[in-house]
Amino acid sequence: MASKAGPPRGMRDFLPAEKRHRDAVLATISSRYQHHGFDPIDTPALEDHNTLHSGLGGDNEKLSFQVLRRGLGLSDLEHVGSLDELTDLGLRFDLTVPLARYVATHRSELPSVFRALHIAPVWRAERPQKGRYRQFVQCDIDIVGDASSLAERELLIASADALDALGVSGYRFRVNDRRLLTAVLESAGVAGDQHLSVLITLDKLDKIGIDGVLEELGTRHGETLDLDAMRGFLERASQQVALDAPSIARAMAAPEDLAAELVGWAGDVAQLIGPEKVVFDPTLVRGMGYYTGSIIELFHPEMGVSLGGGGRYDGMVGRFLGEDVPACGFSLGFERLIDVVDQTRHTTSPGRSLVYTDQTPLRELLRLKAELIAAGYSVVLAESKKNKKALFSELETLGVTQVAQLDTEVPPADQLNWRELGESQG
Amino acid sequence: MASKAGPPRGMRDFLPAEKRHRDAVLATISSRYQHHGFDPIDTPALEDHNTLHSGLGGDNEKLSFQVLRRGLGLSDLEHVGSLDELTDLGLRFDLTVPLARYVATHRSELPSVFRALHIAPVWRAERPQKGRYRQFVQCDIDIVGDASSLAERELLIASADALDALGVSGYRFRVNDRRLLTAVLESAGVAGDQHLSVLITLDKLDKIGIDGVLEELGTRHGETLDLDAMRGFLERASQQVALDAPSIARAMAAPEDLAAELVGWAGDVAQLIGPEKVVFDPTLVRGMGYYTGSIIELFHPEMGVSLGGGGRYDGMVGRFLGEDVPACGFSLGFERLIDVVDQTRHTTSPGRSLVYTDQTPLRELLRLKAELIAAGYSVVLAESKKNKKALFSELETLGVTQVAQLDTEVPPADQLNWRELGESQG
Repeated sequence: MASKAGPPRGMRDFLPAEKRHRDAVLATISSRYQHHGFDPIDTPALEDHNTLHSGLGGDNEKLSFQVLRRGLGLSDLEHVGSLDELTDLGLRFDLTVPLARYVATHRSELPSVFRALHIAPVWRAERPQKGRYRQFVQCDIDIVGDASSLAERELLIASADALDALGVSGYRFRVNDRRLLTAVLESAGVAGDQHLSVLITLDKLDKIGIDGVLEELGTRHGETLDLDAMRGFLERASQQVALDAPSIARAMAAPEDLAAELVGWAGDVAQLIGPEKVVFDPTLVRGMGYYTGSIIELFHPEMGVSLGGGGRYDGMVGRFLGEDVPACGFSLGFERLIDVVDQTRHTTSPGRSLVYTDQTPLRELLRLKAELIAAGYSVVLAESKKNKKALFSELETLGVTQVAQLDTEVPPADQLNWRELGESQG
Repeated sequence: MASKAGPPRGMRDFLPAEKRHRDAVLATISSRYQHHGFDPIDTPALEDHNTLHSGLGGDNEKLSFQVLRRGLGLSDLEHVGSLDELTDLGLRFDLTVPLARYVATHRSELPSVFRALHIAPVWRAERPQKGRYRQFVQCDIDIVGDASSLAERELLIASADALDALGVSGYRFRVNDRRLLTAVLESAGVAGDQHLSVLITLDKLDKIGIDGVLEELGTRHGETLDLDAMRGFLERASQQVALDAPSIARAMAAPEDLAAELVGWAGDVAQLIGPEKVVFDPTLVRGMGYYTGSIIELFHPEMGVSLGGGGRYDGMVGRFLGEDVPACGFSLGFERLIDVVDQTRHTTSPGRSLVYTDQTPLRELLRLKAELIAAGYSVVLAESKKNKKALFSELETLGVTQVAQLDTEVPPADQLNWRELGESQG
């Protein structure tokens, strides 16, 4: 066992520098969202099995880590008719299902329009691969109880503020509406029960191109679907479609008032955060089945990655409540964002080190340390070594910028002889 | 399912006010410890089954939530010889086992003396009861690689600073040393393999008193143990024992140099944080088997609760590493501390609310909101209701202190008519 011990497969430890960076980014996100009126909440990492497997989690339900029932004996295994009987709890695989459950549990304690901020880890038993982890942090904001598009506006404006505060530039919000996609599908003769399946094929456009999409649609839905109508849509969509109602209505073969609704909120957001930051994307789908209206993706063209997404999912929160509740949410992709944010931006308190020997009186040393801390420094003690270069290099990795060496005497703080690290050493 | 959904048994949701309070307390603790040179780390919530069940977790190992292996089929159950075969991962039940594993994994990336700060949730499948939860946060600091008592000094001084920064007063550090207890046991003729068992009885002194302890010792160890010697110790211990070497040596029937070692570090700490805050407690035991030297408990006499504890556990970290590493740690009892800290101490940014109607132009409303946020306020939008009293009361629970009501016009920020909440409403 010794020497081979590591974190579980697909999960990560964080060294101090990484942990500080993550904490600083999360603190900025949390602070900005709270300024925009979002209220922080928390839920347990575990949820009851029935809550997690209520059909709201899509494919992620299959990826949940399930907890073995306590108190089972070997003889119980003989009577098991389904593996589900072995488990009563599971780790959450997203923050949306827990939010829906939370709102149902606490409805009477929450405001009628509830702006939730939920930053927490989730777990998925996916095949580990580069950049994909089995435990990762999600940053979700949701507005529950507001059926108007004020919700979409607040979500995007607050998220843009958080990105700006993190120094992230060059991002774009791609926007669309599931009801516009529905209009496209209806105009191509797709039956209602096949909409989600066709959308999932459409969602592969970036990967397989127009011909690939049409081929897959032909194979799967060729009998009912008007391939020419779909080709026409995909060709119109391959051109930039301006964020105005007539252009959108034309591209999507949709009624202009539906297009005008999207332009209403997205246009306002564009005016407030910068017109280049909001782009209409006719082929934006977003995979989850629960979206009912607006859909949004945060994209970073330069990095070529999605940094988040969201949309309106009016039917979902009400599932645990037994009544319909409008809801709209946005999730920042924290694990990707962390790589985009410059790690040197964080201002930490200046790090000082006091290097002592076995001759240094400890009480005086600790008194001096306390004095420097009270003056606002972070202070790390280090025992002197013969190899000063190795010692100073180790201290530099701890974020120490200045060092004072002590021996038998501990002078007052204002008489210390500070040496800058990174300069001539020896 | 609807309406009955809640968090799992023994686990908690947090409403925004509680979450803010918890976050603020954690931020203070983290900041103070970092100023004292502790480096924040993180590990996954899950650890491999073998890591968790390596014998270092004491009774807590039995309380771990175990995760069902993925990919099991019903037919696999027929061949199961032990329930352990059904599980490969578990949720951590403390932060000490993960730290030991972390140090082994990352030894080459860590400084030779590593001061770790680990704040994270742990999970225990205990019978839920008042004040005891199945998911709770631990705040651990550990110094790995320093065999000297500078470690004990830094742990206590940093913790006292964190408590002071939280406005907690009246706390006491009770200190003792396992080797002094060993001296007591040896003087009473207890065989080495029975030490831990006798200490566990001794640990019940507060609950069952001197006679209760002696009765239990008589029943369990009467044949080998000198009950008169134990009675003598318990009676000496029932008096206040001063923090000086001769007094301690006398009370514990121990060599004076061992007592002097404790007095050395504990006396320095007392001088630096206040002599009333450090108390020698001859009967302090601390339950875990892994302590090898100093043991510490943070006590709040007024509240009658333990707020944390720790000590030296030199053998443990090395278990994963295959070599001995000295280590000393302290854990703040966050879930109890949170109740002691005054919730009104946190300064949050002043909360403002803009109340709008269906006549209010949304773009102007959002521009005004952004302007107020840029000026440093937290701003929550609220749609006007007929019942203003209910509306304002809801806003107050969100932390809003001032409200401006808008209708068809959105004036510039400096012309808003702010109304204080909590004053005459209507």
